[in-house]
Amino acid sequence: MTSFTKKEYEFLKELGIGPQNLGCYVNGTWKATGPVISTVNPANNQIIAEVVEASAQDYEEGMSACAEAAKIWVQVPAPKRGEIVRQIGDALRANLQEFGRLVSLEMGKILPEGIGEVQEVIDMCDFAVGLSRQLNGSVIPSERPNHMMLEMWNPLGIVGVITAFNFPCAVLGWNACIALVCGNCVVWKGAPTTPLVTIAMTKIVASVLEKNNLPGSIFTAFCGGADVGQAIAKDTRIPLVSFTGSSKVGLAVQQTVSQRFGKCLLELSGNNAIIIMDDADIKLAVRSVLFAAVGTAGQRCTTCRRLLVHESIYEKVLEPLVDVYKQVKIGDPLEKGTLLGPLHTRTSRENFEKGIHNIKSQGGKILTGGSVVESEGNFVHPTIVEISSKAEIVKEELFAPVLYVMKFKTFEEAVEINNSVPQGLSSSIFTRNPENIFKWIGPQGSDCGIVNVNIPTNGAEIGGAFGGEKGTGGGREAGSDSWKQYMRRSTWCRYARFAREFIL
Amino acid sequence: MTSFTKKEYEFLKELGIGPQNLGCYVNGTWKATGPVISTVNPANNQIIAEVVEASAQDYEEGMSACAEAAKIWVQVPAPKRGEIVRQIGDALRANLQEFGRLVSLEMGKILPEGIGEVQEVIDMCDFAVGLSRQLNGSVIPSERPNHMMLEMWNPLGIVGVITAFNFPCAVLGWNACIALVCGNCVVWKGAPTTPLVTIAMTKIVASVLEKNNLPGSIFTAFCGGADVGQAIAKDTRIPLVSFTGSSKVGLAVQQTVSQRFGKCLLELSGNNAIIIMDDADIKLAVRSVLFAAVGTAGQRCTTCRRLLVHESIYEKVLEPLVDVYKQVKIGDPLEKGTLLGPLHTRTSRENFEKGIHNIKSQGGKILTGGSVVESEGNFVHPTIVEISSKAEIVKEELFAPVLYVMKFKTFEEAVEINNSVPQGLSSSIFTRNPENIFKWIGPQGSDCGIVNVNIPTNGAEIGGAFGGEKGTGGGREAGSDSWKQYMRRSTWCRYARFAREFIL
Amino acid sequence: MTSFTKKEYEFLKELGIGPQNLGCYVNGTWKATGPVISTVNPANNQIIAEVVEASAQDYEEGMSACAEAAKIWVQVPAPKRGEIVRQIGDALRANLQEFGRLVSLEMGKILPEGIGEVQEVIDMCDFAVGLSRQLNGSVIPSERPNHMMLEMWNPLGIVGVITAFNFPCAVLGWNACIALVCGNCVVWKGAPTTPLVTIAMTKIVASVLEKNNLPGSIFTAFCGGADVGQAIAKDTRIPLVSFTGSSKVGLAVQQTVSQRFGKCLLELSGNNAIIIMDDADIKLAVRSVLFAAVGTAGQRCTTCRRLLVHESIYEKVLEPLVDVYKQVKIGDPLEKGTLLGPLHTRTSRENFEKGIHNIKSQGGKILTGGSVVESEGNFVHPTIVEISSKAEIVKEELFAPVLYVMKFKTFEEAVEINNSVPQGLSSSIFTRNPENIFKWIGPQGSDCGIVNVNIPTNGAEIGGAFGGEKGTGGGREAGSDSWKQYMRRSTWCRYARFAREFIL
Amino acid sequence: MTSFTKKEYEFLKELGIGPQNLGCYVNGTWKATGPVISTVNPANNQIIAEVVEASAQDYEEGMSACAEAAKIWVQVPAPKRGEIVRQIGDALRANLQEFGRLVSLEMGKILPEGIGEVQEVIDMCDFAVGLSRQLNGSVIPSERPNHMMLEMWNPLGIVGVITAFNFPCAVLGWNACIALVCGNCVVWKGAPTTPLVTIAMTKIVASVLEKNNLPGSIFTAFCGGADVGQAIAKDTRIPLVSFTGSSKVGLAVQQTVSQRFGKCLLELSGNNAIIIMDDADIKLAVRSVLFAAVGTAGQRCTTCRRLLVHESIYEKVLEPLVDVYKQVKIGDPLEKGTLLGPLHTRTSRENFEKGIHNIKSQGGKILTGGSVVESEGNFVHPTIVEISSKAEIVKEELFAPVLYVMKFKTFEEAVEINNSVPQGLSSSIFTRNPENIFKWIGPQGSDCGIVNVNIPTNGAEIGGAFGGEKGTGGGREAGSDSWKQYMRRSTWCRYARFAREFIL
Repeated sequence: MTSFTKKEYEFLKELGIGPQNLGCYVNGTWKATGPVISTVNPANNQIIAEVVEASAQDYEEGMSACAEAAKIWVQVPAPKRGEIVRQIGDALRANLQEFGRLVSLEMGKILPEGIGEVQEVIDMCDFAVGLSRQLNGSVIPSERPNHMMLEMWNPLGIVGVITAFNFPCAVLGWNACIALVCGNCVVWKGAPTTPLVTIAMTKIVASVLEKNNLPGSIFTAFCGGADVGQAIAKDTRIPLVSFTGSSKVGLAVQQTVSQRFGKCLLELSGNNAIIIMDDADIKLAVRSVLFAAVGTAGQRCTTCRRLLVHESIYEKVLEPLVDVYKQVKIGDPLEKGTLLGPLHTRTSRENFEKGIHNIKSQGGKILTGGSVVESEGNFVHPTIVEISSKAEIVKEELFAPVLYVMKFKTFEEAVEINNSVPQGLSSSIFTRNPENIFKWIGPQGSDCGIVNVNIPTNGAEIGGAFGGEKGTGGGREAGSDSWKQYMRRSTWCRYARFAREFIL
Repeated sequence: MTSFTKKEYEFLKELGIGPQNLGCYVNGTWKATGPVISTVNPANNQIIAEVVEASAQDYEEGMSACAEAAKIWVQVPAPKRGEIVRQIGDALRANLQEFGRLVSLEMGKILPEGIGEVQEVIDMCDFAVGLSRQLNGSVIPSERPNHMMLEMWNPLGIVGVITAFNFPCAVLGWNACIALVCGNCVVWKGAPTTPLVTIAMTKIVASVLEKNNLPGSIFTAFCGGADVGQAIAKDTRIPLVSFTGSSKVGLAVQQTVSQRFGKCLLELSGNNAIIIMDDADIKLAVRSVLFAAVGTAGQRCTTCRRLLVHESIYEKVLEPLVDVYKQVKIGDPLEKGTLLGPLHTRTSRENFEKGIHNIKSQGGKILTGGSVVESEGNFVHPTIVEISSKAEIVKEELFAPVLYVMKFKTFEEAVEINNSVPQGLSSSIFTRNPENIFKWIGPQGSDCGIVNVNIPTNGAEIGGAFGGEKGTGGGREAGSDSWKQYMRRSTWCRYARFAREFIL
Repeated sequence: MTSFTKKEYEFLKELGIGPQNLGCYVNGTWKATGPVISTVNPANNQIIAEVVEASAQDYEEGMSACAEAAKIWVQVPAPKRGEIVRQIGDALRANLQEFGRLVSLEMGKILPEGIGEVQEVIDMCDFAVGLSRQLNGSVIPSERPNHMMLEMWNPLGIVGVITAFNFPCAVLGWNACIALVCGNCVVWKGAPTTPLVTIAMTKIVASVLEKNNLPGSIFTAFCGGADVGQAIAKDTRIPLVSFTGSSKVGLAVQQTVSQRFGKCLLELSGNNAIIIMDDADIKLAVRSVLFAAVGTAGQRCTTCRRLLVHESIYEKVLEPLVDVYKQVKIGDPLEKGTLLGPLHTRTSRENFEKGIHNIKSQGGKILTGGSVVESEGNFVHPTIVEISSKAEIVKEELFAPVLYVMKFKTFEEAVEINNSVPQGLSSSIFTRNPENIFKWIGPQGSDCGIVNVNIPTNGAEIGGAFGGEKGTGGGREAGSDSWKQYMRRSTWCRYARFAREFIL
Repeated sequence: MTSFTKKEYEFLKELGIGPQNLGCYVNGTWKATGPVISTVNPANNQIIAEVVEASAQDYEEGMSACAEAAKIWVQVPAPKRGEIVRQIGDALRANLQEFGRLVSLEMGKILPEGIGEVQEVIDMCDFAVGLSRQLNGSVIPSERPNHMMLEMWNPLGIVGVITAFNFPCAVLGWNACIALVCGNCVVWKGAPTTPLVTIAMTKIVASVLEKNNLPGSIFTAFCGGADVGQAIAKDTRIPLVSFTGSSKVGLAVQQTVSQRFGKCLLELSGNNAIIIMDDADIKLAVRSVLFAAVGTAGQRCTTCRRLLVHESIYEKVLEPLVDVYKQVKIGDPLEKGTLLGPLHTRTSRENFEKGIHNIKSQGGKILTGGSVVESEGNFVHPTIVEISSKAEIVKEELFAPVLYVMKFKTFEEAVEINNSVPQGLSSSIFTRNPENIFKWIGPQGSDCGIVNVNIPTNGAEIGGAFGGEKGTGGGREAGSDSWKQYMRRSTWCRYARFAREFIL
C-alpha cells in the first residue's frame, strides 16, 4: 500500500485504508476485479482514494462462499453470535474518532454527526447482544389433548443489505447487528460514492470474525453500483433484501425480489412535516425545525421538509426561523463550529438548483437561501420556501436543505396536509394541548411510522422500530420486534402419544 | 323472493337465500346491477340459485360508503368492536347446522367439513373478542431525560379480503374477525363459484351491525369475479389487501397493490410433504396421510401432495395406504359416511385429467385411482402416484386428491426433497427420534411456515399463525401476532417539559 | 323448597334461591351441615333468606373431591376450558337482570352498580376465552449447541378464592375466570354476609359444568366465616390463595400460607386520593370526585377517600362539591334514582359513627354530612371533612362515604401527601399540564398500582392489571399478565443429541 | 495498606484487597466501624485477610446516602443506566482471572468454577444492557372513547440484596445488573464468610460509578452478619429484599419484610432429583449425575441430591457411577485437575458428619464415601447413599456432596418421588421417549421451577428465569420477565378530552 499524498488523509491508515483499495471482502479475503473508481471529498470534490469495485465474478465467488458459511453460522448458538456482535461493537469503539472522521470526510456530514453515526452502530451492537438471548418463540396452548403447539424463529440464511450514501454505516449497522444475531450471513453493498466507509466498516467486522476463527464470508461486502444491487435482488440464495433508497428504486427492487419469492425490507423516501400549533412553545419549535431541516444538509430520510404553522402564529415562527437560517455556519464539515456541510455530490447540487427552479415555477416564494454557494465543494444555502401544500413539488422528496412552509387554520387541516403526500416516514407536532396530542397519535392523526410530539421529525431511538408507511415502504428496522423480519417463523404442532390411544 | 323448486334447498331460506339473490351488500342494503350468474351443486352440476353480481357502479357505491363508515368504526373502542364480533359469533352459532350444510352444498366438501368450517369462524370470533383488549402497543424506555417513547397500533381503515372457493367462509373469518376488532372496515369479495356462502355470511354479519345501530357498510361484500378483485387491488382507499389463491395470481395482485403503495397479506399455493421415517408409528402415519391427502378432495391449501417414505419401510407404508384408498367412500358430500366429495367445478375435474396425463408423460406410475368417476358430478378417484421427486409436475400444486409418493434413504435427503419446491406452506414428519424432531424444526430442517411432527400437514389451530414462506406468500393469519398486519404501527416520542429547561 | 313470604324476593327463584338454602357446593351436590345463618337486606335489616353454612366435614368432603377433579381438569386443553368459561358468561348473560338485582338487594349497592358488577364478570368470561389460546410460554435461544430452552406455564392445581362483601361476585369473577382457563379448580369462600350471591353464582357455574359432563367439584364453594377461610389458608392442597379484604387480615393469611410454602395473591386496603391542580377542569373534577367518593356508599376498594385541592382553587372546588353532596339522593338501592344506598351492615354504620367521633377528636371539621340517617336500614349521610393530611385517621381506610379534604401548594407536595399513607391502590390527578402528567406517572410520582389522569380513582378496566402496592398487597388481577400468578412457571432445557457426540 | 505475608495472596492487590480491609462502601467511600473478622481459605483454614464489618452507624450512614442517590438514579434514562452496567461488565472482564481466583480461594470452589462464576456476572451485564431498552410497558385498548390506558414500569427505588457463600458474586450479579438498569440503587450484604469477594466486586462497581461522576452510594455494600441482614429486612426505605439462603431463614425474612409492606424475592433451598429411565443414554446420564452431585462440593442450590433410577437398569447405572466417584480428584481448588474442593467451612464439614450419622440411623447404606478427609482443610469424600425415598433426611437439603440413590418401577412413581419433598427448585429426566418428556414437562410432571431433559439439574442459562416453587420461595432471577419484580407496575388511564363533551 503506497502512502497518501495529503497529510489530512493519513488518519485513514488506522482504518486500513490507503490511496488504492480493493473493494470486495469475499470468502474472507480482500480482492476486486471490477472497474476502478475514485471517491471524492464533497467539500472540495478532490479525490481521497481509489477503489476497485466488484466484478460479476467477484460477486459469484463471494456469494458461493457466503452460502457455505451460512451452513456454519446458523448452527452457532444465538448468544454466541451475540458475543461476536459485542466484539464488533468494541472494535468500533476503539476506532470511534477515526471512523467518525471518515464518515464526515467521505459523506460530507459535520463531524459530530459522523461520530454520532458510528456511535449508533455501537449502540446497535450492544442492543443486539441482549437480543441474542431473547429471539423468543412461543409455546401456545393446543386445543387437542396430548398435543403441543409452538411458534419458533429460525434464521433465513443470508440477508442482503443495500445501503445509501446518507447513512453509509448506520443503516448497515441496524441491519447487520440484527441479521447476525438472528443467525444470518450478511451480504452488503454500500453506496457507490462512499466506498471507503464500506471498506473500513468491513475491515472492523472482518477482524473480529478472524480473531474468533470464524469464516470471513459470514460478512461479505462489495463496493459497486446498480449491477451488484441487481445481482442481489435476483439472487435466490438471498431470502431477504433490505434496501434503503428512493421509493422508485425500492419498488423496482421489490418486484424483482418478489418474482423469485423473496422478501424485501424497504426504507424508502420520506417527506416529513412539522406542525406548529398556536399553543406551541415557539422557541423550542423553531430550534427543532432548524436542526431537523438543515441537519445533514437536508439529506436525512427524516429531514423536515414541510413546516405547517398555525396562521395565528405564522409571523412569530417565521421571523426567528428565517433569522437563524441566515446565521447558519456553512463550511468544511470537519471544521469545528460548522453547522451545514456540503451536499454529497455535484449532482445533488445540480438537483438542488433544478428543484429551486421548479419551486419558483410552481409559485414558491423563496424566503431565504435558494442558491448554491460558489465554491469547489457542493455547498448550497439553507432555504425556506413559502408555497401551497398543493404544489406538485411538495409531494416529492428533494434531498437538500429546502423547507416548504405553509399555513393552516385548524388541527384537522394540518393533519390532512401532513397525510397528503405519498410518503409516510416521520411527522411531528408542537403543542401543549393533551387533546391534540391524543388525536395526533390516534387513528385519525398522522399516518406516518414515526409520530413525534414536541420533538422534531428526526431523532429516532434504536429501542423503537424505525420506518414508515405508504411510499416509505413499510419496513421496520432497529428495535421493537424488527428482528422478526430477519427470521423465518414456523408454527409447529406435535402429537406426543402413540398408536395405542389413537382411535382409527 | 320466490320459492325453491327443490325441497332440498329449502333450508337455505333460514339463511336468507332464495332462488334469486342480489349479490352486493353495499351501504347497508342489498343490491346488484352486474351480470346474473348461476351457482351449481358440484355433486350434480345442477343449479342451486341465481345471483346478481356487482357492477363497477355497485363497487364504487359500496366503497364510498365503506370509506365513510371507516371514520366511525375507527373511533369505536376496540373492546366494543370485540362485542360486535362476539355477537357475530353467536349469530353463526345459531345457524351452524344450516350454514355448514350450505358450505357443503355449494363448495362440495363433506358435511362434517362444512360444519367444521363454520365452527372455525365461530372460534375466530371468540378469539378476536379476547384480542380486542390486547391490541397492545409498548412503552419503551427513552435514552433522553424527560422523554417518553411509545409504539402504538392504529387501524388501517379498510381491509380488502379476496377469498377462494375451497374455504369460502373460514378464510373470510380469519381475516374479518381480526380486521374488525383492529378497527378496520372489511370489503369482501368471495369466490365467484360460492356466492351463496358469501351472501349468507354477509347476512349474518349485517344482522348484527343493524341490531347495534352501526352502519352496514362497515362490512361491504361483493359477489363477482376478477374485475372486482382488480378494482380492490387498485383502490387506494384500501391500504391492505388480503388475498388467498394461487401463487401466480397472488404475485400479480401484490404488484398492483405495491404500485399504489399498499400492502398485501398473501396466502398462496402449498405443496406439502409428509415424511415417514423408519421409526415412525406406521399405522398413525398411514391414517394421517389418508386424511391429509384425500380430505376436501385434495383441495385444501394444506393438503398433503407429496409422501416421502424411508426406503426401508416403503412397502409397509404403501400397501396399507393403497388399501385404504381403495375403500374410500365417494359420493354426495351431504350424505352420511361419504369421505370424498366431488371436485368443486367441472374445470377442476378436467384439470385433474390433464394432470394425470402429464404425470404419466413425466414417468409417474399410478398405484391407485388416476381416473374420473363417470357421473353428473365432478367426482374423481383418489389417486396415488409413484414418481421421481425431480419430475416437473411435482413442483406444481395440482388441486385434486393426487398424492405423489417417493422414497428416500436419509433424513437429510428427505428434508432436501421437502424444501425443493417453490411453495413453503406446510410439512410434516412422522418419527419417534427426538434428534430428528429437533433438526426438523431447526434452521436446517423444513423451510415451511407450518412444521408438524406426528400429525399431518393439515390441522392448524387458530391460536397459532397460519401461513407459509416462499411461493406461499409470507402472510400469517389467525393467531399469534398476525393482528399486527391489520394495523399501522407508529413509534412516537414526546418531550414532556418546556422551554425553561431547554438549552438553546 | 318453600316459598318466599315477601313478593319482592320471588325473583330469587329464577336464580335457584329459596327461603332456606344449603350453602356448600361440594363434590357436585348442594349440601351443608354447619350453622344456619340469616342474610338481611341492608336497606331495612329484614331477613331475606336462611343459609346453612359449611362444617369442617363439608369442607373436607369438598376439598377431597376438588383435588380429584383437579387431576381431570388440568388435562382438558386450555381452549376447551375457555369454552366452558364462555358458556358461564352466556349463562350469566341470561340471568343478568335478576342476578344484578340480587347483588343490590343483599349487598346494598344501587341497581345499576349491581347489574354492572355482574356485567363485569361476563366481560371477564369473554376476555378469558381469548386468553385460553394465549397462555403462552417462550422458546428461548440456548447458548449451547443442540440444546433447546423453553419457559412453560402449567396449572397450579387448585386456587382458593376468598372474597369480600363489597364486590360479592366481581372479584370471584376476576379470579375464577382466569384460574379456570389456566387449568385450576376453584375453591370459593364468599363473604359471610352475602351468601345468596355466593349460591346464585355457584349455581350458574355448576349448571354449565353439569351440562358439559364435567365434575362439579371443579368449582367448589362454601358459605361460611373465618373458620373456612382459615382452613383454606392452611390447606396444602391449595398452592395459591387469592384473598380480598383488609391489610390486617390479608397479612395474617399470607403468613399462614407462607408457612406451608404456598403463595398468596392479595387485594387489600386502599386509601385513594384525587389531586386537583389549579389548571384542572373543575366541573369534570367535582363530578368525578362525587362518583368516586359516594359511589357504592364509599365501600369500594377504589373509593376516593382523600381529596387534595390546590390552595388557589380550594373554594372553587369545595363550594360546588358540598353543594352536590347535599343533593345526593339517599334511599333504597333498588329504587330508580337512588344514588346512595345503605352501608352493608349495622356494624358498618356503627364504625361510621365511631369514625366521625375520631375525626372530630383529631381536628377534623365536618363540611357536610357526618351523621347517620335514622331508619331501619344502615344509611348514613355522605360526608366531607376538612382535616390535616397528618391526622392519624387519614392513614386508615374507613369503609364509608367519608371524604377527607386538604389543601396543597405545589405539585410535589401533593404527590408527597398522596404517597404518605400505608396503602397504595389507586390515585388520580386532574390537570391540563402535560409536564405534571409526565411526572405523576413517572418514578417520582404516585406510588400506587393505579395512577389515573383526569378520571377518578375508580373505573379500572379488565384489560389492565388491577391491584396495588405497599399495604394493598402487591397482587394483580384481571388483565395484562395477571394470569401468570395462577400458573407454575417452568424453565426447561433439553439436550437433543445423544452419546456418540458427547465428549467425556 | 500493609503487604500480604504470603506470596500466594499477592494477586489480591490487583483487586484492591490487602491484609486489612474496610468492609463497607458507604456514601461513595470505604469505611467500617464494626467488628473485625478474619476470612479463611477453606482448603487449609488459614487466614487470608482481615475485614472490618459494618456497625449500625455505618448501616444508617450508607442507607441515608443511598436513599438520596436513589432520587438521582431513577431519573437517569434506562439506556444510560445500561451503559453503566456495560462498563461494569468490561471492568470485570479486565479482572476475570484474578477475580475468579479470589472466588475460588475464599469460597473453595475449583478454579474453572470460580472464573465461570465471574463470567456469569459479565454475561448478565451484557444481557442487562440490552434489557435497558426493553423495560417495556404496554398501551392497552381502552373500552371508553377518548381514553388511553397504559401499563408502565417504574423503579422501586432501592433493592436490598442478601447473598450466600456458595455463589458469592454471581447471585449479586443476577440481582444488581437487573436492579440497576431498572433504576434502583442496590444495597448489598454478602455472606459473612466471603467478605473479600464482596469488597472486590464492590470496588469494581465503584470504579465505574466514579468514572462516570455518579454518586457511589448508588451501590452500597456492607460486610456483616445477621444484624445487617435484619436491618435490611426491617428498613422501610427498601421496598424489595432479594434473599438467597435456606428456606427457614428466607421465611423469617419474608415475614419481617411483609410486616412493613415490602416485597421479597426468595431463592431458597433446593432438593433436586435426576430420574434415569430405562431407555436413557446411561453414559450421558452417569457423567451428568457426577457433575451435578459433586460439582462445587455439593454446595450449589441446583446440586443433584437425589438420583432416581429405573429398577431395570439400577446396576448398570450404579456400578459406573460408584466407579467414577472413587476416581474423583480431591484437593486444592486452585490446583489444576482438582474436581472436588473443600466444603466452605469447618461447620459445613461437621454438618456433613452429622448428616452421615443421621443417614445411617435412618437406614441409609453408604455405597461410597461417607467420611471426611483428614486434613487442615474442610474436605470430605464424595458420597453415594442407598436409601428409601421416605426417609426423613431425604426431605432436607444437606449442603454437601451426598447423593441419595433410590429405585423406581414406573414413570409415575418417579415423578411422585421427585415431587415429594418440600423444595421445588430443579429436576431432570434422562430418557429417549418423547411421551415421557411430554408428561415430565406438563401439568402432572415435575413441580419444580427448572425441569430439565437429558441434561443435569444444574446448568441454567441467564436467558431463562432461574428459581423454584414451594419451599424454594417462588422468586425468579436473571432472564425472561424476572426484571418485573424489580419495578413497580402502574396501570394508568387518562381521559383526553375536556368538559365541553362531558355530559353531567
